[in-house]
Amino acid sequence: MVVKVYGPPYASARRVLVCLIEKEVKFEIVPVDILKGENKDPKFLKLQPFGEIPVIEDGDFTLYESRAIIRYYADKYKAQGANLVGNTVEEKGVIEQWLEVEGQNYHPHVNNLVLQLLFSSKLGFPFDMKLVEESEEKLNKVLDIYEERLSKSKYLAGDFFSLADLSHLPFTHYLVNAIGKEYMIRDRVHVSAWWDDISNRPSWKSVLQLAPVTSLKEGIQL
Amino acid sequence: MVVKVYGPPYASARRVLVCLIEKEVKFEIVPVDILKGENKDPKFLKLQPFGEIPVIEDGDFTLYESRAIIRYYADKYKAQGANLVGNTVEEKGVIEQWLEVEGQNYHPHVNNLVLQLLFSSKLGFPFDMKLVEESEEKLNKVLDIYEERLSKSKYLAGDFFSLADLSHLPFTHYLVNAIGKEYMIRDRVHVSAWWDDISNRPSWKSVLQLAPVTSLKEGIQL
Repeated sequence: MVVKVYGPPYASARRVLVCLIEKEVKFEIVPVDILKGENKDPKFLKLQPFGEIPVIEDGDFTLYESRAIIRYYADKYKAQGANLVGNTVEEKGVIEQWLEVEGQNYHPHVNNLVLQLLFSSKLGFPFDMKLVEESEEKLNKVLDIYEERLSKSKYLAGDFFSLADLSHLPFTHYLVNAIGKEYMIRDRVHVSAWWDDISNRPSWKSVLQLAPVTSLKEGIQL
Repeated sequence: MVVKVYGPPYASARRVLVCLIEKEVKFEIVPVDILKGENKDPKFLKLQPFGEIPVIEDGDFTLYESRAIIRYYADKYKAQGANLVGNTVEEKGVIEQWLEVEGQNYHPHVNNLVLQLLFSSKLGFPFDMKLVEESEEKLNKVLDIYEERLSKSKYLAGDFFSLADLSHLPFTHYLVNAIGKEYMIRDRVHVSAWWDDISNRPSWKSVLQLAPVTSLKEGIQL
């Protein structure tokens, strides 16, 4: 069974793609062009009523929300590919803690920066410099806490790579590359080493090869 | 072993308290007064570096982020008390989907409304009417999707109560009671029936009895 991943092969969809590669699950990408508004088409809204990507179809099973999808595959294929969920209920708990930190404390600020600095002109909303400055300030405080944490363990949930680290890949990639905020990572020795480690995993390098050439032609370094 | 729950017995901490009651796990509340800034004390920041509540201590195991804590206890005591995580990996996946919808699509808007309408004067930040109007508009769209979903299944993840429903209790309680937005629930027949069902669970009624009298004296209906 080949898993269908609806979405462009960037942004949140990459969270799912890197997980499927880590878990050695075969997939095909069904393109959904957000810049053309295809995520608001009635046909797509039947799959995902909020009009967001990604969505997966696995036989007759449909699931959305990227962090739910990665939990599903990490759980379903626990013994296949990389173990992303730890070995005890306590390790799993700490992974969940850092997945929630990513979703609630880290992502909102990175997402503001990416939307403002990379997509505001493409998606047609006004540029808000105050929001950029506030988001960078808040993200700096979050990264200070990450620096302290990563001075004590190699990865966020412990000395093992997990869903918690994986979930940071897509938008930290934008932070470091497309929007010119690499210094926020490099100014922190442990965060920097952690980023080098997780972004050099073969799975992530494979994901980056999936971006369509057309996006690159439009001048966005996705 | 009695679980220590750090936090006031309201807001996000109630997500944990109702879960512990559902799972028949004994706990004690260690009060942390946010209105007095105790969540920013160095001692508390050692437990929770972001200065947020709740945190649990269970023997020598510490965990924060309310949605991580409820997953941990629902998983650790799967066979004890109410089953909150479904019976198959697919049911668990759909629960995770709606937990993420709660965290990413529902909570931000309800939280804006609650902070503005209930706490802005207490916490000393300016009231923002535009944010209130925008948040209500966005939450209405989210609730329309909930209405459609709950016309097809009794609860969010299927015909069984789960963590996905439980996670909505604390802030929907504020929406319905303290901030006068009950009509947003009552205008939707299936959302209304769902709310009556989940808010009448004995576990939730027990949680509401835990609020300190002092808060009521201050005139906030917590």
